[in-house]
Amino acid sequence: MEQRPIPEPGPNEVLLQMHSVGICGSDVHYWQNGRIGDFVVKKPMVLGHEAAGRVVKVGSAVKNLKEGDRVAVEPGVPREMDEFFKSGNYNLSPTIFFCATPPDDGNLCRFYKHSANFCYKLPDNVTYEEGALIEPLSVGIHACRRAGVTLGSSVLICGAGPIGLVCLLVAKAMGASQVVISDLSADRLVMAKELGADFPLTVKREDGPEELAKRVEGMLEAQPHITIECTGVESSVQTAIYATRPGGVVVLVGLGAAMTTIPLLNAALREVDIRGVFRYCNTWPMAIAMLASKKVNVAPLVTHRFPLEQAVQAFETTRQGQGVKIMLKCDKTDQNP
Amino acid sequence: MEQRPIPEPGPNEVLLQMHSVGICGSDVHYWQNGRIGDFVVKKPMVLGHEAAGRVVKVGSAVKNLKEGDRVAVEPGVPREMDEFFKSGNYNLSPTIFFCATPPDDGNLCRFYKHSANFCYKLPDNVTYEEGALIEPLSVGIHACRRAGVTLGSSVLICGAGPIGLVCLLVAKAMGASQVVISDLSADRLVMAKELGADFPLTVKREDGPEELAKRVEGMLEAQPHITIECTGVESSVQTAIYATRPGGVVVLVGLGAAMTTIPLLNAALREVDIRGVFRYCNTWPMAIAMLASKKVNVAPLVTHRFPLEQAVQAFETTRQGQGVKIMLKCDKTDQNP
Amino acid sequence: MEQRPIPEPGPNEVLLQMHSVGICGSDVHYWQNGRIGDFVVKKPMVLGHEAAGRVVKVGSAVKNLKEGDRVAVEPGVPREMDEFFKSGNYNLSPTIFFCATPPDDGNLCRFYKHSANFCYKLPDNVTYEEGALIEPLSVGIHACRRAGVTLGSSVLICGAGPIGLVCLLVAKAMGASQVVISDLSADRLVMAKELGADFPLTVKREDGPEELAKRVEGMLEAQPHITIECTGVESSVQTAIYATRPGGVVVLVGLGAAMTTIPLLNAALREVDIRGVFRYCNTWPMAIAMLASKKVNVAPLVTHRFPLEQAVQAFETTRQGQGVKIMLKCDKTDQNP
Amino acid sequence: MEQRPIPEPGPNEVLLQMHSVGICGSDVHYWQNGRIGDFVVKKPMVLGHEAAGRVVKVGSAVKNLKEGDRVAVEPGVPREMDEFFKSGNYNLSPTIFFCATPPDDGNLCRFYKHSANFCYKLPDNVTYEEGALIEPLSVGIHACRRAGVTLGSSVLICGAGPIGLVCLLVAKAMGASQVVISDLSADRLVMAKELGADFPLTVKREDGPEELAKRVEGMLEAQPHITIECTGVESSVQTAIYATRPGGVVVLVGLGAAMTTIPLLNAALREVDIRGVFRYCNTWPMAIAMLASKKVNVAPLVTHRFPLEQAVQAFETTRQGQGVKIMLKCDKTDQNP
Repeated sequence: MEQRPIPEPGPNEVLLQMHSVGICGSDVHYWQNGRIGDFVVKKPMVLGHEAAGRVVKVGSAVKNLKEGDRVAVEPGVPREMDEFFKSGNYNLSPTIFFCATPPDDGNLCRFYKHSANFCYKLPDNVTYEEGALIEPLSVGIHACRRAGVTLGSSVLICGAGPIGLVCLLVAKAMGASQVVISDLSADRLVMAKELGADFPLTVKREDGPEELAKRVEGMLEAQPHITIECTGVESSVQTAIYATRPGGVVVLVGLGAAMTTIPLLNAALREVDIRGVFRYCNTWPMAIAMLASKKVNVAPLVTHRFPLEQAVQAFETTRQGQGVKIMLKCDKTDQNP
Repeated sequence: MEQRPIPEPGPNEVLLQMHSVGICGSDVHYWQNGRIGDFVVKKPMVLGHEAAGRVVKVGSAVKNLKEGDRVAVEPGVPREMDEFFKSGNYNLSPTIFFCATPPDDGNLCRFYKHSANFCYKLPDNVTYEEGALIEPLSVGIHACRRAGVTLGSSVLICGAGPIGLVCLLVAKAMGASQVVISDLSADRLVMAKELGADFPLTVKREDGPEELAKRVEGMLEAQPHITIECTGVESSVQTAIYATRPGGVVVLVGLGAAMTTIPLLNAALREVDIRGVFRYCNTWPMAIAMLASKKVNVAPLVTHRFPLEQAVQAFETTRQGQGVKIMLKCDKTDQNP
Repeated sequence: MEQRPIPEPGPNEVLLQMHSVGICGSDVHYWQNGRIGDFVVKKPMVLGHEAAGRVVKVGSAVKNLKEGDRVAVEPGVPREMDEFFKSGNYNLSPTIFFCATPPDDGNLCRFYKHSANFCYKLPDNVTYEEGALIEPLSVGIHACRRAGVTLGSSVLICGAGPIGLVCLLVAKAMGASQVVISDLSADRLVMAKELGADFPLTVKREDGPEELAKRVEGMLEAQPHITIECTGVESSVQTAIYATRPGGVVVLVGLGAAMTTIPLLNAALREVDIRGVFRYCNTWPMAIAMLASKKVNVAPLVTHRFPLEQAVQAFETTRQGQGVKIMLKCDKTDQNP
Repeated sequence: MEQRPIPEPGPNEVLLQMHSVGICGSDVHYWQNGRIGDFVVKKPMVLGHEAAGRVVKVGSAVKNLKEGDRVAVEPGVPREMDEFFKSGNYNLSPTIFFCATPPDDGNLCRFYKHSANFCYKLPDNVTYEEGALIEPLSVGIHACRRAGVTLGSSVLICGAGPIGLVCLLVAKAMGASQVVISDLSADRLVMAKELGADFPLTVKREDGPEELAKRVEGMLEAQPHITIECTGVESSVQTAIYATRPGGVVVLVGLGAAMTTIPLLNAALREVDIRGVFRYCNTWPMAIAMLASKKVNVAPLVTHRFPLEQAVQAFETTRQGQGVKIMLKCDKTDQNP
């Protein structure tokens, strides 16, 4: 652990005492590899972007927050009022600040300053950890929104890791009637089942995409309207396309190789749209509304907790794929959820 | 009760033995007044359009159903492949057949024939009464879909009668986080609360629209994104407009007078859209999916049951505003839900 | 004319030497009445919000512009990153700065500073006056976009004043096949016809709304998909509703009285949506693209020009309803278009 | 030429005397290869699906047409009221009848019967050949609609064959401000330029996709919002993805191999949607509206005409890639456009 000076918030910023920060696969990746694609860590970088904390100092122009407010942190803050920001897609703004994406520091630390407009006050009945989990939940919200999940949608989710599970929770909350979720690991599907999946589907590496698509159709007695691909594996993207109903949507959440070979003709002739998701935008307010009204229960996702001093152990546990979501507790005086 | 010959299904039709038929306000209105607006009953007409039954005979060209299938009946069947049908809005087709809208007969009888394409097979775990309730539920689905209810929406529903209640159920199933529902009768709000309403709001005739709008904003700590107006009362439409957030939507489900005085300037300057709903289209499959997966529970809506022989009593009970939904049981050998 | 000090641009602002500023009906209204609805002029206010000029000084943080750039000015600049701005509807942000809406000053002056993010560089083949006309053009773009004008749309435009005419130009550019445009004045319809209207319709005050709707249907041999109401007159709003095809859209651009009596039942039962427009957002880039590619020709709209010194005469001419668009020329050394 | 008996129209059909039938690449493909993908010609099949003719006999239930009407023929007629038809996407209905897709006969003959609901009356100022060209035009309409072309869109079209050219015409009519169109053949780009393309781009087989994408960006001074891929060639699909702006759309019109290798990660991370088109639906009425109002001029596309007796020559000419669109004239007494 490095000692850094406590930062001073600018006029539109707040200083936060961090409480709970979740570890994401990308954090582990930067820790181990020092890069993800074109994003390369060139100087020491603070990790962490799934976070909640308490306001301890307020910039001079801030109106929406006051000292003592408990807040969830949206890690992406647009720097420019460009065409993407003006049209409501600030996640696509190329100059956006984003916690723990080099060269921007994250918030896995004791004290952290952030744009007040991208800190959202938590109601009393939402815990800090739930606040921190809004970040992965937002990936699920953005994916389901891009997919157009609505009342009565049938959905296939490929992959039952943390992101597959939040997609499951959100799809159900948006009205999906039936969800098939697939994974190589039967263990992971146990939690998926507990979180509301209708059909867990254990797959093997050697299963053919077209055959898997048929099995999904058999389970649902029809092809799913929507497939949310959370693995990034080429054969799984192929399965996603074959499985989806004509006029349906495949959403790509998992990240794979630069070049991918897919049955594009099959998708095109059946008007199955292929849509990617890059992070999220405009999700915190609705996520807080859902958590406050108890429509979505993310608490079971937290399987491990470590004090900040044991960060290395926490990262090691994540790296080994144990549990679902691992929380680092940054406030020595309050290690509660 | 009138004796009519059992009809013979055409090539694309099925003959149904009716099981459960709900009574709608419009049925009572035709019974009492013989007309609704431009629709005038000129010859004896069979009432009923909220129905489920069992297939007893299948037309020669029918492929999707077989004898013995339990089905829910969609009462509107387009007669022409006009621009509305071709573009997926067959509810707007001016020549549509519709049960119990003059001059078309309804299905409150023992045996009834209907287009097989507009009869939908019920899964084993969905009862006939749930099947019959798909009709009012469809009004709620179409209203919430036109409103754009989605994850985290806050919603005001004006009126807690049967239609207000199905809008409540559907809004919640589509992800609404908070629902205010208003009514003159505190009694009706008890059931609304049981069905999931977050904020019941008892209103008085003399309450001013702007004042009511303020109370709604106070309850939600913000204006609702969406208002679904189910009363048709002029002052309630005014409340709906004042109450809704800029950029939001007012959906008109309740039918009022031909001319209505509303704060149109207020709506226009805040880009609050005003959208009507005329019946529904493409709702049965998703409704069945929701009922089969137990995401929506409509069973509590049925408060009274009468055998078909006691139809007059049933209509009288409906006319008096007792209970929520009153079911007529048309099959002497099976009066179960 | 008042002498004010030349303002100093802030870090994200540019100082402009104004070139051409159009006069809008609202400018005249503030000049004559000192208020529009809730907006009251309490201290001397600079008018003008249809403007183009040249950058003469650049704030320290500005990257998108440099000295000498010719720019069009978007008069609305959001002050807060609130939910409306974040979701791409910054026109609905309640704290937005807007030129010449009290208490904010306009840009009808020699030198004016403005947010650099809301100044848009004009290509060489777009004149200053065309740049100034992007403001009224934006009203037309936002209206047609909210209306959903697309290939083959048939459109009724009520009112052939400056705003009706820009709606006509934009509707045609977005693919409308047939446009009926109505006005009390046959003279105004002459220009409408020149600008591409298919059917000019001279109306009389005593014409009944339902009768007018029938005449429109007769002209088009079908009801229009879309009606854009630009007069704000109650009977014209009524005509708009009766005239529009089931499933169609009425857009309200003209502003009328606070309360309006309309055939709401007719609209609701035919699912004719009623949508307001409040100014515009995200229109300048597409307007510039259209002007640069010569897809829209706004030049004929300018019927009068006055040097800034003759502003009173220019306002008087506008007040009398002469011409279409009156331009004030603010640059003594260049009074060209 | 084969002699077949003149067919008798059913109650909802009309008998047409064919006038003009365009030759499509797929016709040539069936003629040469006897199959396209899974569609295999197993018995002699009449080709032709770009057609217009005159009504000579009317089925007993037909209301929308009468003897003597000049009509354009929509070749796809849904056979079942399935979920796709009911929701307005009848092109996706798996059991649809489609002219000249085995086993369904086409309309390249003297007399042909067709569903009256899918024959559209031509106004007097639209020729038979324009009527026949509505079929390829519909591909362009459906592609541009799926792409979301609107006012100010910048568009890249890959391929300047007949389909690329109709996409160009439609994109311009829907408001596209700038269109780049690419082809291997400089000759084909000459016509593209005449039809309104802003930037013709001659490409070579060896050009790299990323390099081509850069050239397109250079021409437009920004990445295009939309790319319409009309070649089906793998490297061109790759170019389409690299070239498109974040948040934009790639539409796949050209058909390639079953499996395609593409930079899917690039598309996903920039939220560039990939959408296929399968034929079209709900395009004839808007196409007729555009032709009647002279907003789109398709006449220059017809470069060759042959009487029906010289069909073999006409097919041979098409096979050799001469001209753009080749028309067969089926009415001996009237060989005019």
